[in-house]
Amino acid sequence: MAVFQRFQRLQTLHVAPRRLKPQTCNVTVHRTVTERIQQRHAHDVVPTRRPFSRVTSDDLSFFNDLLPGRTITDPDMLESCNVDWLKTVKGSSEVLLRPKTTEEVSQILRYCNKRNLAVSPQGGNTGLVGGSVPVFDEIILSTALMNRVLTFDSILVIFTGILTCQAGCVLESLSQYVEERDFIMPLDLGAKGSCHIGGNVSTNAGGLRLLRYGSLRGTVLGLEVVLADGRVLDCLAKLRKDNTGYDMKQLFIGSEGTLGVVTAVSILCPRKPKSVNVAFLGCSSFQNLLETFQICRGMLGEILSAFEFLDASCMSLVEKHLKLTNPIAESPYYIVIETAGSNAAHDEEKLHDFLEKVTASSLVADGTVATEEAKIKALWSIRERITEALRHDGYTYKYDVSLPLEKIYDLVTDMREHLGNQAKNVVGYGHVGDGNLHLNVTSPSKDEALLAAIEPYVYEWTWKWRGSISAEHGLGLKKRNYIYYSKSQEAVRLMRDFKAMLDPKGILNPYKTLPDDVR
Amino acid sequence: MAVFQRFQRLQTLHVAPRRLKPQTCNVTVHRTVTERIQQRHAHDVVPTRRPFSRVTSDDLSFFNDLLPGRTITDPDMLESCNVDWLKTVKGSSEVLLRPKTTEEVSQILRYCNKRNLAVSPQGGNTGLVGGSVPVFDEIILSTALMNRVLTFDSILVIFTGILTCQAGCVLESLSQYVEERDFIMPLDLGAKGSCHIGGNVSTNAGGLRLLRYGSLRGTVLGLEVVLADGRVLDCLAKLRKDNTGYDMKQLFIGSEGTLGVVTAVSILCPRKPKSVNVAFLGCSSFQNLLETFQICRGMLGEILSAFEFLDASCMSLVEKHLKLTNPIAESPYYIVIETAGSNAAHDEEKLHDFLEKVTASSLVADGTVATEEAKIKALWSIRERITEALRHDGYTYKYDVSLPLEKIYDLVTDMREHLGNQAKNVVGYGHVGDGNLHLNVTSPSKDEALLAAIEPYVYEWTWKWRGSISAEHGLGLKKRNYIYYSKSQEAVRLMRDFKAMLDPKGILNPYKTLPDDVR
Repeated sequence: MAVFQRFQRLQTLHVAPRRLKPQTCNVTVHRTVTERIQQRHAHDVVPTRRPFSRVTSDDLSFFNDLLPGRTITDPDMLESCNVDWLKTVKGSSEVLLRPKTTEEVSQILRYCNKRNLAVSPQGGNTGLVGGSVPVFDEIILSTALMNRVLTFDSILVIFTGILTCQAGCVLESLSQYVEERDFIMPLDLGAKGSCHIGGNVSTNAGGLRLLRYGSLRGTVLGLEVVLADGRVLDCLAKLRKDNTGYDMKQLFIGSEGTLGVVTAVSILCPRKPKSVNVAFLGCSSFQNLLETFQICRGMLGEILSAFEFLDASCMSLVEKHLKLTNPIAESPYYIVIETAGSNAAHDEEKLHDFLEKVTASSLVADGTVATEEAKIKALWSIRERITEALRHDGYTYKYDVSLPLEKIYDLVTDMREHLGNQAKNVVGYGHVGDGNLHLNVTSPSKDEALLAAIEPYVYEWTWKWRGSISAEHGLGLKKRNYIYYSKSQEAVRLMRDFKAMLDPKGILNPYKTLPDDVR
Repeated sequence: MAVFQRFQRLQTLHVAPRRLKPQTCNVTVHRTVTERIQQRHAHDVVPTRRPFSRVTSDDLSFFNDLLPGRTITDPDMLESCNVDWLKTVKGSSEVLLRPKTTEEVSQILRYCNKRNLAVSPQGGNTGLVGGSVPVFDEIILSTALMNRVLTFDSILVIFTGILTCQAGCVLESLSQYVEERDFIMPLDLGAKGSCHIGGNVSTNAGGLRLLRYGSLRGTVLGLEVVLADGRVLDCLAKLRKDNTGYDMKQLFIGSEGTLGVVTAVSILCPRKPKSVNVAFLGCSSFQNLLETFQICRGMLGEILSAFEFLDASCMSLVEKHLKLTNPIAESPYYIVIETAGSNAAHDEEKLHDFLEKVTASSLVADGTVATEEAKIKALWSIRERITEALRHDGYTYKYDVSLPLEKIYDLVTDMREHLGNQAKNVVGYGHVGDGNLHLNVTSPSKDEALLAAIEPYVYEWTWKWRGSISAEHGLGLKKRNYIYYSKSQEAVRLMRDFKAMLDPKGILNPYKTLPDDVR
């Protein structure tokens, strides 16, 4: 189809485009000022080592007997597990354990709990909030060798798409596995080449497909979890519906390994779409981008599978640091739209009609569409590799917030103005469809003054609009003390009660998720 | 379109239709025999009243002061709240409280907890497992007057479809409310005219749209809950993504009011589809029905919004008791397929192609399609009113199980054979798309011998195929002692710990959800 070529630059319309009315958001300020003040200087709080035992030679003998050849103490081999992907958090663990089975995880935790040894569970170590590395000398419990697919409906004639696998399977490997069988994973994210499904579940990862397939809270059907004292909790159901008692597994989704170690996952995979298209568009204003989203939801409807955005600063960074090429004319804002459907002709017609509408009304200034896999991947990589480009740009302060859609980019604009030339770059990108902004600030090196200018400003701002200070990344080590900006004291108190019940000695991923005032 | 007329009866094809290969299901028998035997006679276990206080005149004074005119003690007015919709469970409560606000619910529970008075929370009282009525003299806490819509994004230009309302809003009223604003509720069920959204959430109701929009675990974005001691837990976020700490609200979804009373709900509503079609089809065998489902998922893809079935016995009952008319030729099995999409022409073409394929291959014997609202409602009512027809047929033993799709109807066939002429009718219907069967057995009146023949047979059968003994109805009073057929002892022990933590005196909906061996 003609529209599936690179667009022509558009002429100004004679008819003035429809504009959004200015609005204010109905913010109910229901948190107390006291709560806020308590958090003002939370970024200054560095945890102190809690009185856990230290690993002895007897402990090492036990681990060596249990995991011969898989109990690692070589400092060189430990190096990469002690530091996070962003290289902003560094622990000093002296032991890395690599179990292969749930039973081994159970024995490790039973022993550690008895000995009061702290444990830092680790998947692909791709987290961005310091949740997946030790803070002090916690034992690193890696799921890297727990990478077997257990079942995929293969004995059934009526495929339901239910995959059951060990926690250490790499997301991209699982994607390949189910795609060969005509399904796809219900989640996709930039870190797919390294991240583990157990880590995805433990952090309730969002990513690029949430708009279409919903969160892991709906698609994860079952979990197997080892509790702090070594008990194995088998909730590995493979049923779309199961209302027998409380849904225990939900507590472990998104709790960042602080309540238990996920060892196996059962997950519902959607059918592989027969037709996929990706459009990469440019908008001259964020208002235009939002109007494009509104029209897109109406016209693409059920085939819309992603609506992502990046700003011009992000584009400059991927061009500069990764040598990627901007496929369209320069714009202040770029959109990545993906459609996924069962009928190529219908999908192309819907996309064609949508593109005609948004270009005719000047909402979109330029764009290109891809239907072939290689070109689709190339367009997606611009969006997916922003995180990588930022890492090349310098020390990165990362924020991941949910906001009312109409306010979502104002945070970037306000932050830019607030920081002036203190920052190297202030950029915004993220998941428009989910109201999720990734705000990133870079500087040549770690800069405490810059940090103090960003925090708590960013949290105050988010709180004011009743947003969430962590949309999909979690709290980990870095954000734990800001939890009150998004959760009430009553809710945090209850979290503390759950932690105390499930892990009374607090050995599982200490210093993470819960604020320091809550052990 | 021509195909959108009543079908012609089909000629036998010369080509033999594709058949499903016979298969066995990979059942891993991992529960212990001991666990099973413990449950063999669970239906004989009648609870004994626990040592809660009895309501005194002082208590009534307190309630009358707090809720003047809304503290009901008139036995006639209490009658309908003491008995469930099926008229199979009857309590003897002498007090019905009708709060209007969260603060009132909080004060009621704080008082009851202090006084050790048991409370039975009640929404629309449409539950089928005896979960919504008192067993003895528990105080009934009704959400009927908590029926205000709180917000629906109405101040925002970019509608996100997030509805926030009190727990006592009737599902059908909410549907009307959001439909007027071009959205729909993400769930729909036969009881919509009476059931409350708070009850839907508390029972994790499934219903007719789960196939398309997923479970409430994904669509419920926030909850406000009053805990047993009167504390108000505000998790009423209105964000699609929020990973700040543990997701407390999940514990209250599906816990049947035993851990807290849901007072307000925030829920994500999908856009109202521009085009809806319903096809009512007949199949000569269940095998054909399953093959039709397989093809349907491939060809209707993203526009498929429901795939429901009923057997010939269900059709006879709705014809006999409700005077509904079978719109097509008699068949052993009937399917209701709904499509919902954004482009009427595309949807009709997809449906047309699908219907051509399944009729040409003789999988479907006869059928009719509706595109107008009145005819759509008429077709849906056949499926939706089966429960009502069964109630007219006599005393009904109801089962709601998840099973591997290929085994789903075998339970009906086996049960019919197993019961012989002990039962009046044995019927099957349900949600094929979710692997969820509603098996119902009727008899002229309550019949202990019949019950003993059904249970634990039905649970043993479900357990053998690793199904769930409650797919969407919950456990309530009736199924609580069968929980071990679907959950491990470790999981139930943990449920008990949660209950003890959140409701140490056990005043909230006692005798429900958890088995009698677990208080």
